[in-house]
Amino acid sequence: MTATIVTIGDELLIGQVIDTNSAFIAQELGKIGVMVKRRMAVGDDKIEIIEALDEAKKLSELILITGGLGPTKDDITKQTLCEYFKSTLVMNEEIKLMVIDLFRKLNRPMPEINLKQAELPHNCIPIKNFYGTAPGMCFKQEGKMFFSMPGVPFEMKPMMVDSVIPVIKKEFKTPFIIHRTIHTQGLGESFLAEQIKDFEENFPANFKLAYLPHYSIVRLRITAIGENEIELKEKVDSLEKQITDRIGENVFGYDDTTLEKTIGEILKQQHKTISTAESCTGGLIAHKLVSVAGASDYFIGSMVCYSYDAKENNLGVKKNTLDTFGAVSEETVREMVQGALRNLKTDYAIAVSGIAGPGGGTPDKPVGTVWIAVGNNEKIIAKRFQFARTREIIMEYTAITALGMAWRFLNGKVLN
Amino acid sequence: MTATIVTIGDELLIGQVIDTNSAFIAQELGKIGVMVKRRMAVGDDKIEIIEALDEAKKLSELILITGGLGPTKDDITKQTLCEYFKSTLVMNEEIKLMVIDLFRKLNRPMPEINLKQAELPHNCIPIKNFYGTAPGMCFKQEGKMFFSMPGVPFEMKPMMVDSVIPVIKKEFKTPFIIHRTIHTQGLGESFLAEQIKDFEENFPANFKLAYLPHYSIVRLRITAIGENEIELKEKVDSLEKQITDRIGENVFGYDDTTLEKTIGEILKQQHKTISTAESCTGGLIAHKLVSVAGASDYFIGSMVCYSYDAKENNLGVKKNTLDTFGAVSEETVREMVQGALRNLKTDYAIAVSGIAGPGGGTPDKPVGTVWIAVGNNEKIIAKRFQFARTREIIMEYTAITALGMAWRFLNGKVLN
Repeated sequence: MTATIVTIGDELLIGQVIDTNSAFIAQELGKIGVMVKRRMAVGDDKIEIIEALDEAKKLSELILITGGLGPTKDDITKQTLCEYFKSTLVMNEEIKLMVIDLFRKLNRPMPEINLKQAELPHNCIPIKNFYGTAPGMCFKQEGKMFFSMPGVPFEMKPMMVDSVIPVIKKEFKTPFIIHRTIHTQGLGESFLAEQIKDFEENFPANFKLAYLPHYSIVRLRITAIGENEIELKEKVDSLEKQITDRIGENVFGYDDTTLEKTIGEILKQQHKTISTAESCTGGLIAHKLVSVAGASDYFIGSMVCYSYDAKENNLGVKKNTLDTFGAVSEETVREMVQGALRNLKTDYAIAVSGIAGPGGGTPDKPVGTVWIAVGNNEKIIAKRFQFARTREIIMEYTAITALGMAWRFLNGKVLN
Repeated sequence: MTATIVTIGDELLIGQVIDTNSAFIAQELGKIGVMVKRRMAVGDDKIEIIEALDEAKKLSELILITGGLGPTKDDITKQTLCEYFKSTLVMNEEIKLMVIDLFRKLNRPMPEINLKQAELPHNCIPIKNFYGTAPGMCFKQEGKMFFSMPGVPFEMKPMMVDSVIPVIKKEFKTPFIIHRTIHTQGLGESFLAEQIKDFEENFPANFKLAYLPHYSIVRLRITAIGENEIELKEKVDSLEKQITDRIGENVFGYDDTTLEKTIGEILKQQHKTISTAESCTGGLIAHKLVSVAGASDYFIGSMVCYSYDAKENNLGVKKNTLDTFGAVSEETVREMVQGALRNLKTDYAIAVSGIAGPGGGTPDKPVGTVWIAVGNNEKIIAKRFQFARTREIIMEYTAITALGMAWRFLNGKVLN
């Protein structure tokens, strides 16, 4: 069985918005063994949308649609679907109450226009939207299923995972699929590939290994498709173990974890606290740490010291150190760690200082030069890194690499 | 005239890669008045590719193709195009020299396989690739033009800008398209819509208005298509002015700006500095401010104080204030602003304290309750907000709303 994804919105056609929804939908479908046959993006135009739906219907049993469900005039997906499925709009009282309730929760007056969002084609199965005012819709026609979801990612994603996927699994017989993700940090995609080449070459036909790189993190995803659940699971377990034995140094977790979560779990076990002292990342590392629910158990705070004065006054970096070695130096990040440990009274601290660019580079410290230090009151480890590309990318590399160093330090692993 | 974009690659269908090429291509086409009619993504599959090309040919005069030009087995775009245009592959000596030269420059041995990349369909116009080994191709058929480019963004982008666009401009007469984006903050999509309803209803047929919401920011995009550039521009300018006059309170900029950039520009003009004191956002506001190149001119630092102790010790929030009113209170955020102004020695400061959830809510301060304050040594303004949804979303709303308040404060605008 295959699916076709239809994303709707002029902003996609003029390139003002990058379509991240399609990738998310494709990943979720992949998890239940549904292959995406084609992706299409069309504008907020009735004829265009109808043509795309006809297309999609020819290509696949499953059609997933996002976008064009807003309350404003430019959004016409609902009206078009209503026409396409020869339906009429009727007010759905349950959805209406949800819309009213959402505005009450936000404690904002509700414009009339939003009530219309509770009007739905009479022959669709409504899909509740717990994160916005536009409900999803499910239509059945000639054995095909159509799902229409909002284009706003934070509304679409939970709807896809919690409502659409379960319906698909119920309505269609999908093969048995096991996904296992091994999270690694600090080793490039091709180096990992080199190290586990022999496993990969001997992978069974119904097994797949995917490399999902994200900055200095690479997720290895094993996918197994088959009929016998127990057999598949045993094989996946043994492959996971073999791969972990080979590259264990770089493995920080499995499946739904993240580096931030892993660090949080270790700190909770150790009953220890952490803080950060950030220059070039401007608080990104701290923000990643607090993105984990319950971070207040171990995260105390951060000193974002962008200027020389702030490093001196708020982190106690010595003027002499800054003058002699510069803000981007081993000496400075070591003193930044000490300053964070002292001022924020934590067991561990992470410090970064670098040149994110585009300006500020020098021959001996070009743009992308970053010093990272992690430590406690006994020991501080500092390393120099050279990252590349844009300001944004350099900051992200810095933050993730710093968290990787912190994870190794917390684990008492040798850093090299 | 319209264009259809066809992106080729299995990685696009399993959601492993987010397609950023299409957005770039669409933007470049938009600049020369070529509207994108549809975008399609297909796998590395001959039949799929041919179906998509037939499709695209029906839809548009111009077909832009990316991906599947690599030297490895899985890339089949060139062979498929060769077959589609009833051609035969012949070695192109000029391209061959470029490929050899590239490897010499990289000072790497050249695998035989790469030489085959210089073989091109005899009836295509080769497009040189100065950043990789896969040349682009241009085919003409029945008055339609097909351009095939590599999928690697840093190879595709210069090829698109330097080679493909000039050819399109030479071969086709294109209409004029003007896009104008009005950036607003603090007013929901539907509230904006109600305020400018009358304009929208009287929009000329060749004009379009789109709403692009992002948390508490809504971008209004006017798109105009026509023959007379001056006329269009005048009309767009007057529409921009009318809309701005109506909702000016919420307009922080136009076209390629952001709230962070706008704040940075104001601070540079005023020769003033800013800092943040953050609790629930954990440094997100600071990170947004430093995401702007040159932020070091006005951003000094941030105190991320997650714990009570940190708020007391590092921001000087009075123990009595925390005990009496709690960390999420007007009194606390006001003292946090004062602490940041004092400790980081800045002209302005932003402070936030809230309950991001999922835990920590109480009946009078449910999850999503956030206090935001902005101020200087003369004046501090504090407001309570109630946000909803997930931890991540509450943090993002908090950060963007705080920046919105800061922008208004810097502008000396009345906050209400």
